[in-house]
Amino acid sequence: MHTTSEAAAEHLVRLRQRRPLVHNITNYVAMDISANVLLAAGASPAMVHAVEEVEDFVQVSDALVLNIGTLSPSWVEAMHRASDRARALGKPIVLDPVGVGATPYRTKVAAELARAGVTAVRANASEILALAGATDAAPKGVDSSHEVDEALDAAKQLASDLGAVVAVTGPDDRVTDGETVLRVGGGSSLMAQVTAMGCACTAMTAAFLAASEAETPPAQSVAHALAFFGVAGTQAHRVSSGPASFRAAFIDTLANLQPVDLERGAQIYL
Amino acid sequence: MHTTSEAAAEHLVRLRQRRPLVHNITNYVAMDISANVLLAAGASPAMVHAVEEVEDFVQVSDALVLNIGTLSPSWVEAMHRASDRARALGKPIVLDPVGVGATPYRTKVAAELARAGVTAVRANASEILALAGATDAAPKGVDSSHEVDEALDAAKQLASDLGAVVAVTGPDDRVTDGETVLRVGGGSSLMAQVTAMGCACTAMTAAFLAASEAETPPAQSVAHALAFFGVAGTQAHRVSSGPASFRAAFIDTLANLQPVDLERGAQIYL
Amino acid sequence: MHTTSEAAAEHLVRLRQRRPLVHNITNYVAMDISANVLLAAGASPAMVHAVEEVEDFVQVSDALVLNIGTLSPSWVEAMHRASDRARALGKPIVLDPVGVGATPYRTKVAAELARAGVTAVRANASEILALAGATDAAPKGVDSSHEVDEALDAAKQLASDLGAVVAVTGPDDRVTDGETVLRVGGGSSLMAQVTAMGCACTAMTAAFLAASEAETPPAQSVAHALAFFGVAGTQAHRVSSGPASFRAAFIDTLANLQPVDLERGAQIYL
Repeated sequence: MHTTSEAAAEHLVRLRQRRPLVHNITNYVAMDISANVLLAAGASPAMVHAVEEVEDFVQVSDALVLNIGTLSPSWVEAMHRASDRARALGKPIVLDPVGVGATPYRTKVAAELARAGVTAVRANASEILALAGATDAAPKGVDSSHEVDEALDAAKQLASDLGAVVAVTGPDDRVTDGETVLRVGGGSSLMAQVTAMGCACTAMTAAFLAASEAETPPAQSVAHALAFFGVAGTQAHRVSSGPASFRAAFIDTLANLQPVDLERGAQIYL
Repeated sequence: MHTTSEAAAEHLVRLRQRRPLVHNITNYVAMDISANVLLAAGASPAMVHAVEEVEDFVQVSDALVLNIGTLSPSWVEAMHRASDRARALGKPIVLDPVGVGATPYRTKVAAELARAGVTAVRANASEILALAGATDAAPKGVDSSHEVDEALDAAKQLASDLGAVVAVTGPDDRVTDGETVLRVGGGSSLMAQVTAMGCACTAMTAAFLAASEAETPPAQSVAHALAFFGVAGTQAHRVSSGPASFRAAFIDTLANLQPVDLERGAQIYL
Repeated sequence: MHTTSEAAAEHLVRLRQRRPLVHNITNYVAMDISANVLLAAGASPAMVHAVEEVEDFVQVSDALVLNIGTLSPSWVEAMHRASDRARALGKPIVLDPVGVGATPYRTKVAAELARAGVTAVRANASEILALAGATDAAPKGVDSSHEVDEALDAAKQLASDLGAVVAVTGPDDRVTDGETVLRVGGGSSLMAQVTAMGCACTAMTAAFLAASEAETPPAQSVAHALAFFGVAGTQAHRVSSGPASFRAAFIDTLANLQPVDLERGAQIYL
């Protein structure tokens, strides 16, 4: 399992043509940036969480994001209902287990959502360690206190256990299907200073999964999304003077970036 | 029924003098941009949704926004209570039926809020078609898949049925009271790439309705709000390099735009 | 009780070293800017509100923010649980009584949270007057309709009654422990045109309280937070052309501001 920058570029073309509708059940902090990142990239975002309508909304959408950042019981119920429906319809589901391990409730909810069946998990290193059951991971809030490499074995094991793609993001990203590991470079040190940047990356992952060819392995699609984020982050960094100007430049760049830029700039390694 | 750019400019003067308090029961994605757009323009925003206090808050506010973007039953109950109180007190109510038609629940809620009585509805073409009962409208998520003109007959019919002003926004906007139709120009192609820009426009509409003279027909007030948005959008577009820099430039422009700029730039046609 | 700009600068150094985890139970509008302001300054933000986990999350966090901007009963219950646990553990609690006085429900909730015991209250003049029981304060929504000085006596009385620090922010800020009053200058007129800027200031106050030395009086820590906000606001104002560019420049400045800049620029007076 590998992929190329050419394949990433073609994937971006498809995303902009298909304009996938990404259904986000996500946290309050991530909603604005997730929606703007999806719109800028060429997808169509929607945030829908009521149990009265999530299943119907899954029906009209192309991918589902489950993000537990600001969870509460009624939202978790909606996530399970949406997840069940998306699975039944064969639509991609991406889980973002924000802050898993910080409280027992959060850990339980994340584990149940993961075990119910997802296409991919995107998280930072501390979260992957906690989700994989590393009881000494001791995550501190929602920011990572571990290096990406420390979580690599846990990520592979988790991917095998779940039958899902696992992406660990940080200064360098890793994507694994449990066997192969792809490394994706690029990005900016300022990304960690912008809230919900990881959540927005999860949403982008869902958009790429929704826009992929039937024969493309999900791990490749996830790597393409991360490479797109990486190229845009690197470019935006050059014209930024801090986290807020970076956030704006990053979103502008997502909108302006052409497939050829992704083909030239994507950093995907075996 | 017509209006002029001079009337729009005078209306902006009144808005900044009266500084209307706009009570928003709106979706999570729209809250930040709606509040910042209202503040920049010269109004005072508040987001209040608890059934325990919405009626009391309507009492101290000057206009009410009902936006169903991220609806759930307790919020819908709050919307109805607030709406009933606002109607009893003669305060303007503007409905934004985000994503109506995408799910049966959303369609039902939007129809009930509309039928209870509102001053104005502001939506995109797909939403107006769905709200007017065009069962083949098939909206895709919350972004429009129809042209403004396709929704014009539905908008007029809806305005007559509801006894309300209906505004259909898009590249060109239409405002109708069921008989006359005003066309409002201006704006920017980047507006569709910024999340909740339509929701913010709805909030601005409420602010203009709250700041209007008693004798001004509501359709004129709505047209003035759209013209203000249009002029600011056109100006902001010139200094933007993508959706996020546009968003910032747009809000800056709303704050800096003078009545004379609106008088010169407003594009309102019969 | 006094403090110096040198002490404020050393406090900023400690904040960036300790990277306190600030647990926010805050309003929907304030989440994005609060999180980004905390991250930019060097703290680690988290938004957690479910009654199922707030107490556990208090355990791993370093300070607690209670902000009633978009309150509802289940959130209020979570605030009380979190507050009780934080008090038991000796962790600082900062209350932001957004819009207190605007409705009886809001006034009741704010009073109960304050009386349960907090380390500090940060609010605008109208809110302090309302919280102190000035029944003629008649706040209009969430924006202040009073001058900071009008609320000074009420602030001192409130501080004495609650045994807490009270900060009244506006063009000039006042911080009191009930006896001494510190005045903190700086800032920008554009701050009042950015939504939730006061809420973000409350979050910053919590971060400084969490990063203070054991022997530092809380009023000093609060003054340092306000001085930091003031210096950043003054600097950001110079490169801004409106409220949205100010917001971005302000967050950039929080990230880039060095302790020496705070030492030179802090405006703290007895």
